[in-house]
Amino acid sequence: MKPVRIGLIGLGAVGSQVARILTEEAESLQARAGIPLRLVKVAVRDTGKKRGFTPDSGLLTTEPFDVVNSPEVDIVVELIGGEDPAFDLAMAAARKRKGFVTANKLLLALRGAEVFSAFEKSGARLGFEAAVAGAIPIIRSIRESFSGDQVELIQGIVNGTGNYILSRMTDEGSRFEDVLKDAQALGYAEADPTLDVEGIDSAHKVAILAALAFETMVDFSDVYTEGITNITPEDIISARELGYRIKLLGVARRVDDTISLRVHPTMLPQKDLMANVDGPFNAIHILSSQAGASTLVGRGAGGGPTATAVLSDIVSMARDIASGAGARMAPLGAPVGGMDKLPVIPIDELESEYYLRFTVPDRPNVLAQIAGALGDNGISIASMIQRERKENQPVSVVLMTHNAVEADMKKSLAHIESSGICLAPTMIIRIAENGRD
Amino acid sequence: MKPVRIGLIGLGAVGSQVARILTEEAESLQARAGIPLRLVKVAVRDTGKKRGFTPDSGLLTTEPFDVVNSPEVDIVVELIGGEDPAFDLAMAAARKRKGFVTANKLLLALRGAEVFSAFEKSGARLGFEAAVAGAIPIIRSIRESFSGDQVELIQGIVNGTGNYILSRMTDEGSRFEDVLKDAQALGYAEADPTLDVEGIDSAHKVAILAALAFETMVDFSDVYTEGITNITPEDIISARELGYRIKLLGVARRVDDTISLRVHPTMLPQKDLMANVDGPFNAIHILSSQAGASTLVGRGAGGGPTATAVLSDIVSMARDIASGAGARMAPLGAPVGGMDKLPVIPIDELESEYYLRFTVPDRPNVLAQIAGALGDNGISIASMIQRERKENQPVSVVLMTHNAVEADMKKSLAHIESSGICLAPTMIIRIAENGRD
Repeated sequence: MKPVRIGLIGLGAVGSQVARILTEEAESLQARAGIPLRLVKVAVRDTGKKRGFTPDSGLLTTEPFDVVNSPEVDIVVELIGGEDPAFDLAMAAARKRKGFVTANKLLLALRGAEVFSAFEKSGARLGFEAAVAGAIPIIRSIRESFSGDQVELIQGIVNGTGNYILSRMTDEGSRFEDVLKDAQALGYAEADPTLDVEGIDSAHKVAILAALAFETMVDFSDVYTEGITNITPEDIISARELGYRIKLLGVARRVDDTISLRVHPTMLPQKDLMANVDGPFNAIHILSSQAGASTLVGRGAGGGPTATAVLSDIVSMARDIASGAGARMAPLGAPVGGMDKLPVIPIDELESEYYLRFTVPDRPNVLAQIAGALGDNGISIASMIQRERKENQPVSVVLMTHNAVEADMKKSLAHIESSGICLAPTMIIRIAENGRD
Repeated sequence: MKPVRIGLIGLGAVGSQVARILTEEAESLQARAGIPLRLVKVAVRDTGKKRGFTPDSGLLTTEPFDVVNSPEVDIVVELIGGEDPAFDLAMAAARKRKGFVTANKLLLALRGAEVFSAFEKSGARLGFEAAVAGAIPIIRSIRESFSGDQVELIQGIVNGTGNYILSRMTDEGSRFEDVLKDAQALGYAEADPTLDVEGIDSAHKVAILAALAFETMVDFSDVYTEGITNITPEDIISARELGYRIKLLGVARRVDDTISLRVHPTMLPQKDLMANVDGPFNAIHILSSQAGASTLVGRGAGGGPTATAVLSDIVSMARDIASGAGARMAPLGAPVGGMDKLPVIPIDELESEYYLRFTVPDRPNVLAQIAGALGDNGISIASMIQRERKENQPVSVVLMTHNAVEADMKKSLAHIESSGICLAPTMIIRIAENGRD
């Protein structure tokens, strides 16, 4: 049987694992795919660089478009990330009706509408299991395992770096800046950690998951995004005392014909499975009409886990080819053409319970002022922690509220800030919503 | 486009959900499958019975073979369970090259070798996502998401009834018999609960998962099986004091070219994700070479969750048909013909840490006798609990051992029993193995 010919663009941690497995595990892959898989071309920036696994030098090129344009290549695997030239590579693959496998969440979050419809129109295959949560089979689960169900809610810890930092802050009581520095030294965080710690990478994944789960086009700018840079050890300790743990969650929820898309630090009850997913692990919780609650946990990044996801897409396409199938489904499961663009509920309309930490002078009327401003906007307090006082030092007042609307919360906080009693910015953390069954 | 025609055998809790969704959600299913799905025949025992959802009476028949034999039916969905007539129905579907979707774990555990090879040979499609762990997408994950990886270990809570009973015993301190009676009254346990509480149903699932994960034929009789009927409230309390929770686990592990297959109560560290999967939920932990540790949690039974699994197989087959594909893969992912039958390690060769509870007279030399007998077989004690004494009453001695070989453990226990000091059968619970990363 004529082999399926694979061209690889990028030979970093993931790419070199993919190349190694395609080479060393060829026999097992052939048994599973029903057809031989052959690595025929690899684009790298520097052909001389030493790597964990270096393919035969005859396969190497420094020009990514050589891979897409080569008549020898059936499936293009893009592992360079970023928007440019990945977008042009994807569009070229769609035009040439080649299979395209990518781990590029930024590309699909920012240019998904164009990429998804290009592949749908040309009938070429698009695989992006590796773009969200590494080895967790979330794309295949939504697209195939829940194809007879309706997803209502997705909540996920989908950024390993952020979760690693929060977990260490929780375990060690350390400050964000210190753990970040250490994570950078260990290679767990990048020199510029913005995408990870500001929640942007998580937001990319929310955009992709929402498009897939709710069969809608998503504008990336509609994902409300907050990172973890302001979380302090005191917040983590207060959370624990109140029975919670803080996680950076991506949330996509459908309510009737509207959706809510957001990334922010979230208090999860300590008993919640996801509250105990630590270190570099990712977790995704799905609530659907028929299946109820499901949670998938696994390694969200790294060469091995991401290579598993990439290879699952390659084998899937090879099985299609071996069995004579065209593209078995549209990139998002159902055709983009038939999709409504569901309106996104603004964050101001969110209803949630809130954790608030005020830094205020140690004066008797302060709490009354805070409670009054909240009460004036219909927000009632569920519980309170006040730390022991130190003479002439600001005190922290920690409050948990009952359910409130975000706009009312903002109004209250603006009022409190304007009264001049806050000696530092107020910390606001949303509590995980109910309905997780 | 000519619709894919579906025939249903069995209209119980799962079947009536499947029939309802095929009927009421036809539009969304068609968008996802790329082809209309139509329910054309339904076999029931009693056509007059009232059900949650009753299809058009023109579709009903009382003869299951009418469904398989009908030239109108493309996909047969078998939801009656049991070996007979399900086996003959499956073989007839394979011969007629019809898609066959089943939730029947007993059938695939006991007659898997015949069923899997019949479908492989005929090139017909076999879907059995619903046979293991309800809505948890474990079959698709192993067969497709880990197709570029090697699974090394599967550990699962795969029986909802057993987990429900153990969870309530743990939460309430109740006795097995009492919770079972209550579970039967609530409809969570069957009148004859043997399959669930004796671990047999879990063993069915272990046999299926091992065949799939390790690409080997499995003899069901090779699965070592112990149930939960002997677990007492005292064991649950002792486990908690030692930092563990007791779960009924199915385990399939590959070590080089041998496999270990077993179902038994297992102590899981309290911090382990699976230790906190309670009630009717199932969980499956997978350790694989590249992806590392993954855990999937979800509802393991019930009409809705199982219907989601059944429909995912139906939609998958419909996508094949719509895209012109033959069967995209062998039922077990790789062809059965090429499979080694891996030898199964006997339980006597298992290495594990053990929890032991002895019921003995309250005499000073008793502990020395027990420790001596263990020590003579090279087994050392890691920790001990002795409960407060009541005058002239037997006492419980609870021990945790370091790693030991099961055969040595049995020799020690036989020696201790023969000395006549045991006033009741000794309780033995294995501790979850390491290497779960």
